[in-house]
Amino acid sequence: MYVIAVYDMEAERTQLMLSLLRRYLTHVQNSVCEGELTDAQYAVLTEEIEETVKPNESVILYQLRDDNWLNRKIYGSDPMDDHRLI
Amino acid sequence: MYVIAVYDMEAERTQLMLSLLRRYLTHVQNSVCEGELTDAQYAVLTEEIEETVKPNESVILYQLRDDNWLNRKIYGSDPMDDHRLI
Repeated sequence: MYVIAVYDMEAERTQLMLSLLRRYLTHVQNSVCEGELTDAQYAVLTEEIEETVKPNESVILYQLRDDNWLNRKIYGSDPMDDHRLI
Repeated sequence: MYVIAVYDMEAERTQLMLSLLRRYLTHVQNSVCEGELTDAQYAVLTEEIEETVKPNESVILYQLRDDNWLNRKIYGSDPMDDHRLI
């Protein structure tokens, strides 16, 4: 499956969520990670997200069977090109 | 088609991109909009994004044929619930 994760955390906890997501996915833009996951990885990731996220924070996971159905286009710069992503 | 738009703009230009995207899509999280578009709407939107975005900024459009292939899950709060989204 292909997964896109977007997150909106308390400022000082953003790094916490980013570190969690980056263990499974690629950081592609400010609060966005994406990548291919197995069912087992997805199950573990969602459990860790549930344990981490606070009620006033938000994580949205978009899950697709695979990226064959996905067309991805970047406008402006690709943050992954110039390694602006920490 | 179903479209997810994520954007990373200069701080003072974030509202500019959000206003553009909200003419076509729903604002669902901090820098994320999504929704159903016709081919014609997609063509106009992408043209406007190209005219608006600066080289140091970034917009990623994820385009799916339709949302039948998409599973969407929210962890924490849904910003759309309590109208935190301006």
